[in-house]
Amino acid sequence: VVGGLIFVKLGGSVITDKKKPFTERRRLIKSLAEEIYSSHRHSDFNLIIGHGGGSYPHTPAGRYQTHKGIVGDESTLGIALVQDAASRLNRIIVSYLLEAGEKAISVQPSSALVASNGRIVSWDLATIRLMLKLGLVPVTYGDVGLDQVKGCCILSTEEIFCYLARHLKPDRIIIGTDVDGVYEGDPKKDKDAKKIPIITPKNAVNLIHLLGGAGGLDVTGGMRTKVATLLDLVREVDVECEVLNIARRGVLEKALKGERGIGTIIRRE
Amino acid sequence: VVGGLIFVKLGGSVITDKKKPFTERRRLIKSLAEEIYSSHRHSDFNLIIGHGGGSYPHTPAGRYQTHKGIVGDESTLGIALVQDAASRLNRIIVSYLLEAGEKAISVQPSSALVASNGRIVSWDLATIRLMLKLGLVPVTYGDVGLDQVKGCCILSTEEIFCYLARHLKPDRIIIGTDVDGVYEGDPKKDKDAKKIPIITPKNAVNLIHLLGGAGGLDVTGGMRTKVATLLDLVREVDVECEVLNIARRGVLEKALKGERGIGTIIRRE
Repeated sequence: VVGGLIFVKLGGSVITDKKKPFTERRRLIKSLAEEIYSSHRHSDFNLIIGHGGGSYPHTPAGRYQTHKGIVGDESTLGIALVQDAASRLNRIIVSYLLEAGEKAISVQPSSALVASNGRIVSWDLATIRLMLKLGLVPVTYGDVGLDQVKGCCILSTEEIFCYLARHLKPDRIIIGTDVDGVYEGDPKKDKDAKKIPIITPKNAVNLIHLLGGAGGLDVTGGMRTKVATLLDLVREVDVECEVLNIARRGVLEKALKGERGIGTIIRRE
Repeated sequence: VVGGLIFVKLGGSVITDKKKPFTERRRLIKSLAEEIYSSHRHSDFNLIIGHGGGSYPHTPAGRYQTHKGIVGDESTLGIALVQDAASRLNRIIVSYLLEAGEKAISVQPSSALVASNGRIVSWDLATIRLMLKLGLVPVTYGDVGLDQVKGCCILSTEEIFCYLARHLKPDRIIIGTDVDGVYEGDPKKDKDAKKIPIITPKNAVNLIHLLGGAGGLDVTGGMRTKVATLLDLVREVDVECEVLNIARRGVLEKALKGERGIGTIIRRE
């Protein structure tokens, strides 16, 4: 890969144990940081990393039902606790990226943007553009959002990537999960579930109801929501997305070095 | 104090040991968080907290000369390391505020604003306004800034407060340091140095050259710079500022409960 802009998502189900509150997987995070650096160090593409929150923010977000907005006296405390949890995980991810050699720089969504009913409506990207110009690697993440309609919301990495993609026009979006791609059914429960090689808006109509959910607690929605969000995106922006299993050693590095089709590709045509 | 908006700075020389890299003063931070909560819990003023970086970001900022901008190959790495250090200290401060009972929420300057030659020129405050409306307590801090002219800069809490003050019109700004106010000379070196009760643009012309520096490493400038910045501010915005010693137990709580003149007041007239 020479030049261009790539978005990489490190899924919450990969970097944390979604079933244990506040439990990150340090060895896996360290090796992902090294794979990113190894593929990036001799290339000149720009990179934006986004990571899920997994069992960090999802723990208070579930308790305070943050995705529903301000629903009671405790909701405001919930905003503060979700932000703290998401940001603590972000510090861990950034520290491993720095250690690996990446010039990683946090981008905290909850302090920079405004949402409206869960969708990002206002975010000045001049700061991120300056970061990219300097060769920094912005590291954003699933977070609580301040919402002008319902007070607060949960912003998934996909929602954040979609907003960024509309304005920054990346060449590729890599969505790293702990499954080998998008399946008809749930590959964790059904051994015979079939992996779908390519999803386009055209074949999606026959597929979307077959998609299974992701395991564990996830207030940002399972695989079906992710695919639907990415399909909406490719209809609007001509970008190639790929969902793949970055929990397998070397997969992220191969994908970043240019290999296509390891997982499931989602694109316009 | 009923209603209104107060900015409080927790100085870097108070919350860290400026002479020891990456050394925070946890007991003092805990007690300041409790003083803030104790004065705030039964009042209805809004609060914005800003804290200095002290020996956290100032360590890499000094090494990479971040305040000078992009000056060499290593400068970009410096930006990433300064942000990481500032943000790690911010997590500590926020966690003590949350523990004390405040609904504290981080506001990360480096990911939200754009500077130009060290001055903030673009920062959408819609997010902070939503936070205040919900009764959250934004906690911002001295940080690295992305700079459209020189690449990067150091943003002091005072620079941040000035920008926020122009747009949010606070009633008071409390600048917490480890000296009892602003002195003619340096009270840490000279026992006979006199404390100045009130500084206005009018009497400042005779005073400013007499002001001593703060101890330890400080890439954001000493007391003289702080006073000059606050004087510029009060000329523009009619706000009462007070520099006081929050390292003394109970001083911040008294000031937040409405007491005036414990330290040095800086105001328009």
